[in-house]
Amino acid sequence: MSTTENLRVAVVGAGAMGSDHVRRITSTIAGADVVAVVEPDVARATAAAAKAPGAITAASFEDALDATPIDAVIVATPGFLHEPVLVPAIERGLAVLCEKPLTTSAEDSFRIVELEQATSDRPRIQVGFMRRFDRGYQELKALRESGANGALLALHHAHRNPTTPPNFSESMLIHDSVIHEIDIIPFLTGEPIVSVEVKKPRRNSLAPADLPEPQFVLFTTASGTMSIVEISVNAQFGYQVTTDAVFESGVAYIGRETTMHVVSAGVSGQGVTPSYIERFGAAYDEEVQRWVDAARNGGIDGPSAWDGYTASVVAEVTVRAQQSGALEHVTYATAKPAFYEPTTAGAGALAGVGPTTTGPTR
Amino acid sequence: MSTTENLRVAVVGAGAMGSDHVRRITSTIAGADVVAVVEPDVARATAAAAKAPGAITAASFEDALDATPIDAVIVATPGFLHEPVLVPAIERGLAVLCEKPLTTSAEDSFRIVELEQATSDRPRIQVGFMRRFDRGYQELKALRESGANGALLALHHAHRNPTTPPNFSESMLIHDSVIHEIDIIPFLTGEPIVSVEVKKPRRNSLAPADLPEPQFVLFTTASGTMSIVEISVNAQFGYQVTTDAVFESGVAYIGRETTMHVVSAGVSGQGVTPSYIERFGAAYDEEVQRWVDAARNGGIDGPSAWDGYTASVVAEVTVRAQQSGALEHVTYATAKPAFYEPTTAGAGALAGVGPTTTGPTR
Amino acid sequence: MSTTENLRVAVVGAGAMGSDHVRRITSTIAGADVVAVVEPDVARATAAAAKAPGAITAASFEDALDATPIDAVIVATPGFLHEPVLVPAIERGLAVLCEKPLTTSAEDSFRIVELEQATSDRPRIQVGFMRRFDRGYQELKALRESGANGALLALHHAHRNPTTPPNFSESMLIHDSVIHEIDIIPFLTGEPIVSVEVKKPRRNSLAPADLPEPQFVLFTTASGTMSIVEISVNAQFGYQVTTDAVFESGVAYIGRETTMHVVSAGVSGQGVTPSYIERFGAAYDEEVQRWVDAARNGGIDGPSAWDGYTASVVAEVTVRAQQSGALEHVTYATAKPAFYEPTTAGAGALAGVGPTTTGPTR
Amino acid sequence: MSTTENLRVAVVGAGAMGSDHVRRITSTIAGADVVAVVEPDVARATAAAAKAPGAITAASFEDALDATPIDAVIVATPGFLHEPVLVPAIERGLAVLCEKPLTTSAEDSFRIVELEQATSDRPRIQVGFMRRFDRGYQELKALRESGANGALLALHHAHRNPTTPPNFSESMLIHDSVIHEIDIIPFLTGEPIVSVEVKKPRRNSLAPADLPEPQFVLFTTASGTMSIVEISVNAQFGYQVTTDAVFESGVAYIGRETTMHVVSAGVSGQGVTPSYIERFGAAYDEEVQRWVDAARNGGIDGPSAWDGYTASVVAEVTVRAQQSGALEHVTYATAKPAFYEPTTAGAGALAGVGPTTTGPTR
Repeated sequence: MSTTENLRVAVVGAGAMGSDHVRRITSTIAGADVVAVVEPDVARATAAAAKAPGAITAASFEDALDATPIDAVIVATPGFLHEPVLVPAIERGLAVLCEKPLTTSAEDSFRIVELEQATSDRPRIQVGFMRRFDRGYQELKALRESGANGALLALHHAHRNPTTPPNFSESMLIHDSVIHEIDIIPFLTGEPIVSVEVKKPRRNSLAPADLPEPQFVLFTTASGTMSIVEISVNAQFGYQVTTDAVFESGVAYIGRETTMHVVSAGVSGQGVTPSYIERFGAAYDEEVQRWVDAARNGGIDGPSAWDGYTASVVAEVTVRAQQSGALEHVTYATAKPAFYEPTTAGAGALAGVGPTTTGPTR
Repeated sequence: MSTTENLRVAVVGAGAMGSDHVRRITSTIAGADVVAVVEPDVARATAAAAKAPGAITAASFEDALDATPIDAVIVATPGFLHEPVLVPAIERGLAVLCEKPLTTSAEDSFRIVELEQATSDRPRIQVGFMRRFDRGYQELKALRESGANGALLALHHAHRNPTTPPNFSESMLIHDSVIHEIDIIPFLTGEPIVSVEVKKPRRNSLAPADLPEPQFVLFTTASGTMSIVEISVNAQFGYQVTTDAVFESGVAYIGRETTMHVVSAGVSGQGVTPSYIERFGAAYDEEVQRWVDAARNGGIDGPSAWDGYTASVVAEVTVRAQQSGALEHVTYATAKPAFYEPTTAGAGALAGVGPTTTGPTR
Repeated sequence: MSTTENLRVAVVGAGAMGSDHVRRITSTIAGADVVAVVEPDVARATAAAAKAPGAITAASFEDALDATPIDAVIVATPGFLHEPVLVPAIERGLAVLCEKPLTTSAEDSFRIVELEQATSDRPRIQVGFMRRFDRGYQELKALRESGANGALLALHHAHRNPTTPPNFSESMLIHDSVIHEIDIIPFLTGEPIVSVEVKKPRRNSLAPADLPEPQFVLFTTASGTMSIVEISVNAQFGYQVTTDAVFESGVAYIGRETTMHVVSAGVSGQGVTPSYIERFGAAYDEEVQRWVDAARNGGIDGPSAWDGYTASVVAEVTVRAQQSGALEHVTYATAKPAFYEPTTAGAGALAGVGPTTTGPTR
Repeated sequence: MSTTENLRVAVVGAGAMGSDHVRRITSTIAGADVVAVVEPDVARATAAAAKAPGAITAASFEDALDATPIDAVIVATPGFLHEPVLVPAIERGLAVLCEKPLTTSAEDSFRIVELEQATSDRPRIQVGFMRRFDRGYQELKALRESGANGALLALHHAHRNPTTPPNFSESMLIHDSVIHEIDIIPFLTGEPIVSVEVKKPRRNSLAPADLPEPQFVLFTTASGTMSIVEISVNAQFGYQVTTDAVFESGVAYIGRETTMHVVSAGVSGQGVTPSYIERFGAAYDEEVQRWVDAARNGGIDGPSAWDGYTASVVAEVTVRAQQSGALEHVTYATAKPAFYEPTTAGAGALAGVGPTTTGPTR
């Protein structure tokens, strides 16, 4: 594929997320076209493909590969269906953007990491942790790296969703929600998570009866930096994701975006984002545009399969900590392979991205 | 052109703005390709074209038209060179995105408006007033239209630039800077400007010696809504554009965007956008994407040539008010032609755009 | 009176303001006792005096003077009744805190100024412009005096009341409301007001039918610093008083006090002060405590009778400007007498008061 | 003592805190006079007494009692000297405002509680936990009591001091600093603390070498509401005390007070309070005024000796938790005696105090 030609993308899964990626690739991203929508539900497949002029529909990934030339694939199926798409995609050398989780277990994820290293000379799988593309997290990482306020000592994360869908279980607090902090903590601190503990405050009576939430999850990274994550998934008022970072000589806050401010009827304030879509929409756009740009050059520009694997490990240990109430230690199968270091050509890992404004410290 | 094919765009002018549009179309906009860069300065032309794989360079717009098929043109030359591009573009039925000003005089702009109506069955020229695509202004317009806080009575605008380039004259305060408020006031109020007056407070000693600024410009629209624009072009600290809107039963503020907040060394605060690029970058992206989408369907989706003409009229009267110190009345050559009404197919005029969140009033 | 004894205060007028001063002196101010409440309405007098153990009631100021030893007087009657209390108070050498206005005309106020100079060796009359004791205005004045951001070029004032009492007339916009900005502008700029102009935007339909408001009042001080005052007295949502100051190299905002912030039901915000009492309650306490402290030492520590006189002059010219629609010039009967200069012993004029924190410029 | 006469106060201890109370009683509090300063250091005693006209100095509390009539005592000595003043004060039926801690051990504090109940028919000892008089905490308590956002589930507290004095030890993190949260958590939640655990993140290298800080202290109250206290005592940037409260359907923030906001040199922000004096000065004034008012009527209006005792218990257990790293349970010697219930005449316990504004939920 010449870089003057658009990336030909198959979107696998046409649920809310996959369908939104079809729209995004078609309507807001430069350099890529959706050429196939893979989805066994014909009505869904047809509806999604209608957004992408020229895209075919297929019931399976293999059918799509047979029907049309494909350069890259976005995996947006439920997690347990990721591996059957990832394996043939890797084997054919396609660029991959895989929604989180990489797979549903650390063990499976490690197999993907091994397969990728065995079949490619550089990372081709990017995992859809979109928060790394949010301006706030990027600025916070840059502030830590600048050293302007000394070492990073502690992080307070609030992660609040308005309500849970039916059948939302306690372990889903971790696998579906806290998984984002599990990814972003190493991103912000530059260090792996080494231990985790879960605390359960008074239960929110507005949550389903069998769901003990909110919870506090305490993560510690290699140098001792401690992160407290408050996860609340029935907070009612809207969607809110914030991080307060405690440095040696300063504190930084992100996630308190401001839009129109209205003073009316005794109240001075503004709207709250109703869901992750409004809060992180720009991050999704940035994520996909940068993945397309990198994929056209044979690389990735975001979290790698290794990041997907380590997140799986930590999530599994965290669920164990939910059950044990004890401090649980995290161990990884191997040290991080050189293959996944950002110096590897094409694995940008968000190095040096974004605005470098670091607020009043400059 | 089929809607499944990308819009073939010629960018005329490869200065800072034109060159940025080449990058934008190529790297962040879906559905369009830059096929030609028109610029007599060969080095500039070559540098800009290098960002767009496959684009040719040409010394004149006519040369470009002869050399390659073109669907649409972005006009990014100095203002006095707009008309020689606009005329052949209209005559050939091309889609046009013309950076402000439409032309350098109200008289010339009116000729363009007449030519467009004579040669097309609907508006094809969109003028680059990008603020209409800023989320804040869209939310404020939606709040006014909702009637939630009653009628809009008054607007306070602050428009502050850090420093002026050499040879920045007093009339450029209006033609280069306040021109944005001249466009946005009718957008927000839904009414034309009918009179203007200029007040000159104590001069900023940090401005060039012959530049009397800041200035207050007072605009009144048809129903009596009054706008006070503070224009400061040597404010030193950064770039800031805000609007406070006074409704009958509430007040709304926009333009106080929040990014990372840092508490350090006795100060609690955040960075200021250094220039219009950081402040309105997302608005430019939105503007161009929506113009591309509309142009592929034969229309526009933003300010029309009529808006460009009326802005020229008001700007000319405002410069007269700068000199006279008196209240000056604004008159337009004709009433707004039905041709430019949003109900005309293709002239979206930003109707119903954007998030409808209106803050605490809901 | 020895400084070890409390100041014996007569409060003249037992309406809302006078009654509140009785409570304040008795319950929150050190070093003073209310010894007399002067009020012809017996029920009001008795109710107010009940808050001050040991205080007598009297139907007239003269009766109170005959009945009990008095060191100082707070004048809280309607404005047209101030002069009959001020004259005997000055003649007897009492300390005076006179609610605004000093008198109801510039001519009458000038007579008071002349009488005070003729009968006392230093100012004894303080006028109740309480905003000078608000922390925000004090910080803004200190910032201007520090020169940290260069000269002060312009001020945007918003002065918003929720609703008007019955019979509120157009001139009362000036005499009752804008009078506070008329006092605070010289305080902030260090210069007298030299001209004024009034602009009338679209009328608020929620205001009484014969009241044309909001209005913009444009004041210019001696060096050319321009102040725009937006006065809105039927703003519905609550009480809000803010000032934005435009310096040569920075901007400062005051009046956006923060209390508890609540995120709930899709809104992130906080309450608005319902009236001037919540907004300026601490300023009133500070004003009275400092007046008591100064009065026990024979002086004043706040706006003088001269400040009361000049405010009367500007208010009269502003009402003329409301009617004429033209720029009106302000002239004073004399230059400021040395008698009223802060260097005069006892006339503190708020020199060097308050926290010197000047925000991020340090 | 008649309520028309001022409360005659002895201030015991003329260090920074005691000396400031002499100034406060004399200069800003209504209804009280300092009649004696008790301090063995003659220079200190004389300097403090100079602020209070008519006050005598004494080397011991007994000497003061012999020398002049005393109604009330403020205890501002180091903690280990509190008991020798409290005992005779209680036995003589004096009103007492005792700076924290009540005594230096839970055992000693319990003896005071027993003595008070044995010798008085109602509480006469108020403990100087001034945060209860801070507007933010009062509003937060009122919001919880209103039930507007459901039950209170969790609290995030940040408690940051700029630097530590010499010889500041790890246990002082609890006894000197976190003691304020130990008092305020029961105040906010309406429940006693039942367990505590301490976590130690990465050490701040700017702290003294033997001081492991910051620390996270996790308190749980009776219903399971969990409080995380971040204590940082070498935060460098200034003094900051905030609380974020997580309710079932909303979140509330306090402690982010706003003063003048300055935009200058690329930064938009405001000053940080340098110490607890600026942050809680108004709370101290409110505390003392309300104590004086209550003491004149034979009661207290704030935290009682029981609150002082329970805080001592929790502080001792917390220091144990610092050392053990384990979850430690808190037990009290008895249930709360009816003697200390707010329904007891005179024990106001801040019931129903302060503004009831609860932000956007109204």
